[in-house]
Amino acid sequence: MHMYDSGLWTARYAAVRQRSLDLAAPLSDEDCCVQSMPDASPIKWHLAHTTWFFETFILEQLETDFQPFHPAFRMLFNSYYNGVGDKHPRPRRGLLTRPGLSEVRAYRANVDQRMARLLGSALDAAARDRLAMLLTLGLEHEQQHQELMLTDVKHLLAQNPINPAYAAEALAPAAAAAPLEWLALDGGLCDIGHQGEGFCFDNELPRHRQYVAPFALASRLLTNGEYLAFIEAGGYRDPSLWLAEGWDWVGSMGLRHPLYWQQDEAGQWWEFTLHGLQRLDANRPATHISLFEADACAHWMGARLPSEAEWELAAHAAGATLECGGLHPGAMSAPQGPLQQMFGHCWQWTSSSYAPYPGYRAAAGALGEYNGKFMVNQYVLRGSSCATPEGHARASYRNFFPAGARWQFSGIRLARTSA
Amino acid sequence: MHMYDSGLWTARYAAVRQRSLDLAAPLSDEDCCVQSMPDASPIKWHLAHTTWFFETFILEQLETDFQPFHPAFRMLFNSYYNGVGDKHPRPRRGLLTRPGLSEVRAYRANVDQRMARLLGSALDAAARDRLAMLLTLGLEHEQQHQELMLTDVKHLLAQNPINPAYAAEALAPAAAAAPLEWLALDGGLCDIGHQGEGFCFDNELPRHRQYVAPFALASRLLTNGEYLAFIEAGGYRDPSLWLAEGWDWVGSMGLRHPLYWQQDEAGQWWEFTLHGLQRLDANRPATHISLFEADACAHWMGARLPSEAEWELAAHAAGATLECGGLHPGAMSAPQGPLQQMFGHCWQWTSSSYAPYPGYRAAAGALGEYNGKFMVNQYVLRGSSCATPEGHARASYRNFFPAGARWQFSGIRLARTSA
Amino acid sequence: MHMYDSGLWTARYAAVRQRSLDLAAPLSDEDCCVQSMPDASPIKWHLAHTTWFFETFILEQLETDFQPFHPAFRMLFNSYYNGVGDKHPRPRRGLLTRPGLSEVRAYRANVDQRMARLLGSALDAAARDRLAMLLTLGLEHEQQHQELMLTDVKHLLAQNPINPAYAAEALAPAAAAAPLEWLALDGGLCDIGHQGEGFCFDNELPRHRQYVAPFALASRLLTNGEYLAFIEAGGYRDPSLWLAEGWDWVGSMGLRHPLYWQQDEAGQWWEFTLHGLQRLDANRPATHISLFEADACAHWMGARLPSEAEWELAAHAAGATLECGGLHPGAMSAPQGPLQQMFGHCWQWTSSSYAPYPGYRAAAGALGEYNGKFMVNQYVLRGSSCATPEGHARASYRNFFPAGARWQFSGIRLARTSA
Amino acid sequence: MHMYDSGLWTARYAAVRQRSLDLAAPLSDEDCCVQSMPDASPIKWHLAHTTWFFETFILEQLETDFQPFHPAFRMLFNSYYNGVGDKHPRPRRGLLTRPGLSEVRAYRANVDQRMARLLGSALDAAARDRLAMLLTLGLEHEQQHQELMLTDVKHLLAQNPINPAYAAEALAPAAAAAPLEWLALDGGLCDIGHQGEGFCFDNELPRHRQYVAPFALASRLLTNGEYLAFIEAGGYRDPSLWLAEGWDWVGSMGLRHPLYWQQDEAGQWWEFTLHGLQRLDANRPATHISLFEADACAHWMGARLPSEAEWELAAHAAGATLECGGLHPGAMSAPQGPLQQMFGHCWQWTSSSYAPYPGYRAAAGALGEYNGKFMVNQYVLRGSSCATPEGHARASYRNFFPAGARWQFSGIRLARTSA
Repeated sequence: MHMYDSGLWTARYAAVRQRSLDLAAPLSDEDCCVQSMPDASPIKWHLAHTTWFFETFILEQLETDFQPFHPAFRMLFNSYYNGVGDKHPRPRRGLLTRPGLSEVRAYRANVDQRMARLLGSALDAAARDRLAMLLTLGLEHEQQHQELMLTDVKHLLAQNPINPAYAAEALAPAAAAAPLEWLALDGGLCDIGHQGEGFCFDNELPRHRQYVAPFALASRLLTNGEYLAFIEAGGYRDPSLWLAEGWDWVGSMGLRHPLYWQQDEAGQWWEFTLHGLQRLDANRPATHISLFEADACAHWMGARLPSEAEWELAAHAAGATLECGGLHPGAMSAPQGPLQQMFGHCWQWTSSSYAPYPGYRAAAGALGEYNGKFMVNQYVLRGSSCATPEGHARASYRNFFPAGARWQFSGIRLARTSA
Repeated sequence: MHMYDSGLWTARYAAVRQRSLDLAAPLSDEDCCVQSMPDASPIKWHLAHTTWFFETFILEQLETDFQPFHPAFRMLFNSYYNGVGDKHPRPRRGLLTRPGLSEVRAYRANVDQRMARLLGSALDAAARDRLAMLLTLGLEHEQQHQELMLTDVKHLLAQNPINPAYAAEALAPAAAAAPLEWLALDGGLCDIGHQGEGFCFDNELPRHRQYVAPFALASRLLTNGEYLAFIEAGGYRDPSLWLAEGWDWVGSMGLRHPLYWQQDEAGQWWEFTLHGLQRLDANRPATHISLFEADACAHWMGARLPSEAEWELAAHAAGATLECGGLHPGAMSAPQGPLQQMFGHCWQWTSSSYAPYPGYRAAAGALGEYNGKFMVNQYVLRGSSCATPEGHARASYRNFFPAGARWQFSGIRLARTSA
Repeated sequence: MHMYDSGLWTARYAAVRQRSLDLAAPLSDEDCCVQSMPDASPIKWHLAHTTWFFETFILEQLETDFQPFHPAFRMLFNSYYNGVGDKHPRPRRGLLTRPGLSEVRAYRANVDQRMARLLGSALDAAARDRLAMLLTLGLEHEQQHQELMLTDVKHLLAQNPINPAYAAEALAPAAAAAPLEWLALDGGLCDIGHQGEGFCFDNELPRHRQYVAPFALASRLLTNGEYLAFIEAGGYRDPSLWLAEGWDWVGSMGLRHPLYWQQDEAGQWWEFTLHGLQRLDANRPATHISLFEADACAHWMGARLPSEAEWELAAHAAGATLECGGLHPGAMSAPQGPLQQMFGHCWQWTSSSYAPYPGYRAAAGALGEYNGKFMVNQYVLRGSSCATPEGHARASYRNFFPAGARWQFSGIRLARTSA
Repeated sequence: MHMYDSGLWTARYAAVRQRSLDLAAPLSDEDCCVQSMPDASPIKWHLAHTTWFFETFILEQLETDFQPFHPAFRMLFNSYYNGVGDKHPRPRRGLLTRPGLSEVRAYRANVDQRMARLLGSALDAAARDRLAMLLTLGLEHEQQHQELMLTDVKHLLAQNPINPAYAAEALAPAAAAAPLEWLALDGGLCDIGHQGEGFCFDNELPRHRQYVAPFALASRLLTNGEYLAFIEAGGYRDPSLWLAEGWDWVGSMGLRHPLYWQQDEAGQWWEFTLHGLQRLDANRPATHISLFEADACAHWMGARLPSEAEWELAAHAAGATLECGGLHPGAMSAPQGPLQQMFGHCWQWTSSSYAPYPGYRAAAGALGEYNGKFMVNQYVLRGSSCATPEGHARASYRNFFPAGARWQFSGIRLARTSA
């Protein structure tokens, strides 16, 4: 499936790689070095780790006379691949002031140069196929980290009492939210999982049969205004709305609102965004919501979260538009069709625990650690967010985070069981 | 469904209630008071809480001139029902030296007397139906706590360096384990969940349709001998076998074997049991295994854990014998049929996250907190264990614990996907 | 100094040993088994450990044909003597439901019988001297634990929301507190530390020279009423009054009052006592005060805590009466002399860090671990409390606890530097 | 004492301020931003906080038309002065990527300019005296932070597996250590504390009388070679050598050697230094030693740590040379006199808890928080280290850290009580 066209590959490689640098462009060396919490990584680490991925999984296997750029980087920038050897502990990534950002940029340039040479070289068919497969994976991997760069730097900047903005321009007010409608689907015996020739991650396979009962899906995401109504109705003080573990989670942290919201002394609500502190916009989709919060709010509204099969089925049935992602979804033209905001706004929590599809098999070797070993105590999110790179998402895509994760662009799409 | 026969109910009530006292009989007041960890409760607390359940959910609603036995007990012995009011914090249950065990026995006697009076009194049809429903729930609830009494007191005694035994008699050696065979099933579109007139918990409902791919299920549980082979092959030192969170769990606690195993200086393995410290019996089912361990061991054996639908389907298909549970399963006569040890030995971890069945609805009011609010970050176990009261289990029964729980009688039944 | 009179020793031994049993008499087996926090020990453990002390340090050395009562007890009831071998971890003392209280009583009876035989046997002079020294130490040690039995069981009962009382009788109101006066002392070059023939602990030696500047000491302890004024003036909300570590301590636990105080909805203050919950008595000495609180309150009153040399000097200078200790100090007749309440009410925090006196030498062997190894990060308290056994305290006695300890009967005596 | 000579002040101010920048010169923006642990601060924070000190305590009081450089800095760079208002939490100092290092340099330049203007302006006598006092304090304060800049950046670089060096040049081997000799002193009634016209911190006052028993002090610091002998004799495995809390501290962290030591597979010892990883030099003073380690090692050698009075008395008696501090003490010419290495090598732990001298009074207002509120649970160190700025130390200087602190340049000088 991965046809080998050297020029196309070279261009695509260069474009994806450049976008990582573009994302880091508004940031200082200091912004790129610090780690705000163990779950997040420094921007510099993302820049180095994505490079490490190409060096380790492609150059080390296919480059003649392979020499690592720096022997210590193999360990420093390994994320979680036990099959590759030692790794620097995740919570200590922010302590690496050396190598500096400029050395990491040099590392990127060096690997890019060697990759270009490799892409332009004569390879036998097997090597070309292997290269195409690995290159695709490496680029998709880098795109995943591009989203994390935005969520992680947002979390970092949010720790600063002076509320620094990542993006200089102001955020335009969103258009009035459309009325929330329900799209009814019959369900039945259907096939779930990736289909076709294009790339997908191993966790989207195998495509398999599943029975889905009739259900209805909300036409759009819940808005900040709707979520605020949940808060004002006492949502964070009523245990009957919450999962027991969610209620403990709320209590242990004394939560009263989503991660980046704050209320000033006059009662006005504000939201920290990549554009700095902004007045809360009632029309935008509520984002940075945990599964616990999404579940409680859905409960309060007399609805529930969809299963991932329901979400995928509806996405296909309604021909959900792959809206253009990006940092300014509010500025986009209104999407068409019965289901809006399926892509490009917020990842949407499902009620489905992240588990292998029946017949799932991880790849052999270290790359087999990519997805499978995380399939416990996490929940699937579907769609994509404003931070997802263009062209990265698809209807069968499975994102996953723990139920208490809030620093992702994650929101709420309701479902309900048909009578 | 709950036909009202006063004499039968009175007898059943008395029998179940007496069994709790029988389980506590070998224990001292001190054994019954102490809490070994936040997840476990003192025996005295179990005896009081099960009584509180009848007093709160039956007597308070149906008794004329209701007066609580002791006003403070409403709070002290509430487990997790926010709808009933305040509750004493779970990790502090073991600090309640007062009321003493004798006062808790008096509480039981008082509630039993009032319950007997209520059961013998004239009630209108609606009240009788309500009473039958609540009484059944209360007795099933007490049976659940009877199992916990055994797992919790075992955990308590295991903390004591002198290895005290709960049961005086020695444990007989188990018969040689039968060869492990595979029962192949076609799967297909099938119905899962409780069916029929008998009692079930709300989490077993509604019965619903599910598609199951062809699979095979192991004919019996994994034995201590087989689990020891996993250990000796380096199972606890090889990250490639473990879920990432499981590997962190192993590392943070430095685990090298199941909860109650110990190895002496001569290399001999021992197991702490309710009968005291015993030589490890290679023929008994491995028990007190966490999901993390079960998954890693299955992985090592080239197999996997079954889904709960697979387990339930197989149990029905093979007409799994409801073997007599009890503390001495090894002494039982060999069960017949293609699937052995489905009940009465160890609960069997499934790969299924504990989630509501499609269309699930919790009961109204405080009793609605019984099951639904725990449906996150837990995994389903099926079958029953040697500690499960006779008559309590069934094929649709859904037990559930977090992936790291080890103090339950939980073991491993393998599955594999058919080619 | 330890003249050997077999009859006198036998009687004294019996009296001290009996008092431990008397202190446990109002308690159930359950009360005696549970441990409320790592700093406190179960009553049963105190009863066993004091017995272990005689068995280990006297019988094992002097008894012919020594056989331990139970081999495991050597480890189970060792508190902190590394020189004696392994020890059961302190925070797990409350998990020992076996041996039960009755077996511990049997242990006590057995050791008492063997001790009586030893005390009545013919010994050479060296053995008699050694026996007298060890016996004295063992009895003083048991008296120290008698005080801890009261502070530890008070802490345990205080965890129970039903506020159980240790002592049945009510607590009589205290007489009106005398006016607080200041006793001025010249100080100068003086000798500090134990003097004379009587017993003392090694930490009271050697008597040594110290220079003390002129100072004044308060005539009595601060009362609850005075401490309440500190609270009502905002004492717990003003960081300028507190040591930095004390302020962090207050903040991390959200403290607003002493350990056993509580305020009801009507604003009335109550105090949990060994006699149950009582209205706060403004005339009693404030007790269960930490060093942090004592220091802040003294600061607020424009005074300071005394050094231990100042306290000892004043006690000698004023001929401080060794008031009869006991659980009802309020009922005692008013003491005479310029300094009141030096003994028998509350231990009095000093500003002195617990450190070895110049020239201090710990005893050889395991008994050398009695005091010296604790001489860091603790502060000295002087005097004695209502829980201190009669005859146990003296002016040179050095009690010691960490600055945040609150479960001892510890109060505040002010000092100030003379102009 | 603080004579006002505008030119001298201006020069001294400029010199001290410049040295902070010089210390940061070898570091990148990233090195200056990251915080390695809550006890340490980022270099950038040190640069800003010392500037804040001048702005807050001098400019805000004495500058006409005072305008803060940035309103948020008042809170961001307040260390612990509750009297000045809110403060950014200490463990979160490393999350401040903004303001960047260049903005902090601009802040320094701005305040330096305004300070120069103030120093050159006409002031009345009272204002000049106040200015001289505050300026002195501000410069001494900055010197204290200069030492912390070196200890904190060393700790940060030590977290990096590639062992980066702060200073490029190699560390020369030390000359052979002189034999350890004992200087005997008579002690007696003596005066302790700062004397004379020069600057001192408030904790060195008032000078007061103290009685000191005869003692002897070691002529030099313990060497790495001597400390290694302690390790090789099993010092970290023998509880009888340690304070109880020290033994728990060793056990909980699994310590086997000083903070920056490591042993390679061949058994060779290495030490991480500001010059990178170096072979352990047996002749250098052992440094980065905690009080717990110092006390245990002294115990093992049959000696003890000196009290702070003993140290100060000996320093005066022997006319201890104020050796030139700096990063290369091994390169200095051998000091003369009976006591060597009193200054300029390692701070020397004393057995004295950090406590106010008799009659101590903190200054009024926020500056009174400088020292007094830390006088609990810390121990005094005397002398100075290789990281102490020239001219900063004196015989009466009292440094202080908790007993487990190891990231300071702290070593061991032995004492013993004369027979």
